[in-house]
Amino acid sequence: MTDAPMTARAASTATAGDILSSHLTAQAGAFLRALPTAVGEVGARPGTGAAPSGGTADLLRAVRRIGGLLHTFGATFEQSWAQESRTELRWLLNLLALEPGYVRRSARLLGALDALTGTEADGPGMLAGHAGAPKARALLDRQLTLARTRAHSTVLQELRSARLHALADRMTLLVAEAPLLDAAADRAGAVLLPQAAAAFTALTASTQQLPLQRAATPYGGDGLRRLGSVPAARGAMDADTALAADDAPWHRVRILVKRARYALEVCSRPAAELDELDQVLARHQDASDAAVTAATAARTPRITPATAYVLGVVHADQRLEVEAARYAFGRQWPELPPSLDGWLEIPPAEGGRGHTPAPRMA
Amino acid sequence: MTDAPMTARAASTATAGDILSSHLTAQAGAFLRALPTAVGEVGARPGTGAAPSGGTADLLRAVRRIGGLLHTFGATFEQSWAQESRTELRWLLNLLALEPGYVRRSARLLGALDALTGTEADGPGMLAGHAGAPKARALLDRQLTLARTRAHSTVLQELRSARLHALADRMTLLVAEAPLLDAAADRAGAVLLPQAAAAFTALTASTQQLPLQRAATPYGGDGLRRLGSVPAARGAMDADTALAADDAPWHRVRILVKRARYALEVCSRPAAELDELDQVLARHQDASDAAVTAATAARTPRITPATAYVLGVVHADQRLEVEAARYAFGRQWPELPPSLDGWLEIPPAEGGRGHTPAPRMA
Repeated sequence: MTDAPMTARAASTATAGDILSSHLTAQAGAFLRALPTAVGEVGARPGTGAAPSGGTADLLRAVRRIGGLLHTFGATFEQSWAQESRTELRWLLNLLALEPGYVRRSARLLGALDALTGTEADGPGMLAGHAGAPKARALLDRQLTLARTRAHSTVLQELRSARLHALADRMTLLVAEAPLLDAAADRAGAVLLPQAAAAFTALTASTQQLPLQRAATPYGGDGLRRLGSVPAARGAMDADTALAADDAPWHRVRILVKRARYALEVCSRPAAELDELDQVLARHQDASDAAVTAATAARTPRITPATAYVLGVVHADQRLEVEAARYAFGRQWPELPPSLDGWLEIPPAEGGRGHTPAPRMA
Repeated sequence: MTDAPMTARAASTATAGDILSSHLTAQAGAFLRALPTAVGEVGARPGTGAAPSGGTADLLRAVRRIGGLLHTFGATFEQSWAQESRTELRWLLNLLALEPGYVRRSARLLGALDALTGTEADGPGMLAGHAGAPKARALLDRQLTLARTRAHSTVLQELRSARLHALADRMTLLVAEAPLLDAAADRAGAVLLPQAAAAFTALTASTQQLPLQRAATPYGGDGLRRLGSVPAARGAMDADTALAADDAPWHRVRILVKRARYALEVCSRPAAELDELDQVLARHQDASDAAVTAATAARTPRITPATAYVLGVVHADQRLEVEAARYAFGRQWPELPPSLDGWLEIPPAEGGRGHTPAPRMA
C-alpha cells in the first residue's frame, strides 16, 4: 500500500479497482492515524482556531475525500455499504465542522463590526464611534460564544459514542479491502472515466443555473435587493426563506466543486482552479451564515434601537460580502468549464510504469 | 445678440469680450424669460418632480452657466461685480434645488426600502416582509415630507424677496453689457484659453487626489468600511464627520466637472464625456445625502428596534450606492483627462467666418 496516488500513466493499464483501492486505503489509513489526535485536540480545549488544524484538519481531509470518492465512483462499490459509509462520514464531517464554524463566524462578524464602527483617523467606518456598537458587539459575542460552547459539548459527547467507534471499524476494514463490485476489475479508464465525467457534468449544469450573468455586474444588488426566485409552494414570504432559497444553489455548487476536485485527485490531475473556486464559495457560505446570525441577533427581545441599527448595518454588510463572493466566482469560473479531456486521451494500450515525466495528455 | 454660441472657428478672430458677452447675454436673457415661469411653478404647488422641469429647469440651467462662466473666466470681469453676482446666483441655485432635492431623496429612500423589503416571489429583498418595514417607511416619509414642506415655504418666501428682484436687475444689466476689463479686448484664444485650461487643471488635480485606484476594485468597502482619512484637527471622531470628510472631495470634483463642462460650451466643444461624469457624481451625491437622512431618522427617539434595524440596512444600502458610484466614476474617468488640446491648436491667423464645417482641430 502506498500513500502516493498512482500516476495517470500507470492508471491506463490499472483496473478501476486498483486505482480506487489505492486511494481509499491511503485515505482510510490517514483517517485512522488522525482520529486519536483529533479526539485529543477537541477534548483538550474548546476550539479557538477559525480553521481546523493539526489532527482535526487531517481527519477532515480524509473524511471529505473518502466521502467524495464513494459518491462519485459509487457505481463501483457495493451500494448499501457505500451509502451507509457516506452517511456516517457526513455525520462526522458536520460534527467536526460545528465548532470551527462558530469560531470563524465570530471572527468574521466581530471583525466586520469593528471595521464598520472603527474610529481610526486614517480609515474610519461608516458607523465610526456609533453608540450602539459596544452593545451590538457584546450581543453577537455572547450569542456566538454560547453556540460554540454548546457545540463543543455535543462534539465531546459524540466523539465518545459507539457511532464513532463503528465508523473507525469501518475505516479499518477499508484499509484491508474495499467492497468492490465485479465491474471494478475492468480497465480504469472505461469504468472510472464516465463516473468522473458525470461529476463535472453535474457541476457545469448546476453552475449554469446560477445567475452568473447578473453577478458579473458589480453592485447589481444580488445579495441585498434582488434575491433569486422563491418557489411559490413555500407559502408566505419571509426574509429567512428568501435568503435561504437565494443562497442554496451556490452552496450546492460548492459541494459539486469539491466532488469534482476529489475526482481530479483520483486522476492525479492538478485541481488548483477548482481549489480557488472552492475558496470563493467558502467565503460565500461564511458570509451567508454570518448574515443569518446578525439577523437572528437583531430579533433578540429588549435590545435598544441603537443596537438593532448597528446589527442592520452588519447584516447588510455581510449580504454585500455574499454579493462580492458571487461576483468573484463569476470572474473565476473558467470560460470553458474544467473537463477531463486530457484524461480521455490516454492511449488505451500505451501503459507501463515509465519513470519519464508524464506528458500533458497523460 | 444671438442665442447660438459662436463657433470655435469664429472665436479664433473674435475678442475674449465678444465670446463672453455673447454667452452671458444669451444666458441672462434665458434667465429673465424663465424667471416668471419658475416663480409661478413654485407658487402653484409643492414640487412633486424629482428633477426640476419647465421654467425652473430653464432657470437653473442659466444660473449654473452664468455662475460657471463668471468663475472660470473671472479674470476678465470687474472683480467685485463678478464675485457678488456669483454669490447671488449660488443663493438662487441652492434655493431652487432645495425642494426637488427632497423629492428626489424621498423617491430614492422609499424606493430602496421597498426593494429591500419587497416580497415579490421573483425577486424579494433581503428584508422581505420584515416587521419593521412599514414603520421605517412611514418615519422616512414623514420626515422628508416635513422637510420638503418647510423648504417649499422658504422658497415661496424668498422668491418674493428684494434679493431676487435685485438679482433679476443684475441680469437685465448683463443682457445689455457685461462689465468687462480692458483685457477682454484681446484675442479670445490668448485671454480665455489659459483660464479654461486652469479649470481643467483644477479638475484633473482634484480627481488625482481621489482614491480612484481603490475605488477601481469593486466591493473594496470604500463606502462602508474604509472611509478616507479624517483631518486630525476635527477632534473626536464620529460617523457624521467621517462620512462628510470622505464624501467632500467627490462633491468638490462634481463642481469642477460642471465648471469644465461650461468652459467647453464656451469653446463650442462637445462635453458629453463630462456630462456622463457629472451624472455619476450626481448619483454619488444623492446616495450620500440619502444615507445621512437614513442615519438621522434612526436617531429619532422612541423608535422600535425593528424600525432602527431596517433603517440600518437602508443606510448601508445607500453607502453601497455611494461606493458603486465611485466605482462607476473610476471606470468612466478617461485615461487621458479631457483637455483643450484641440482648441489650443487653432491656427492664430487662420480666422474668417467660413461656411465649411469646422475641422476636428478647430
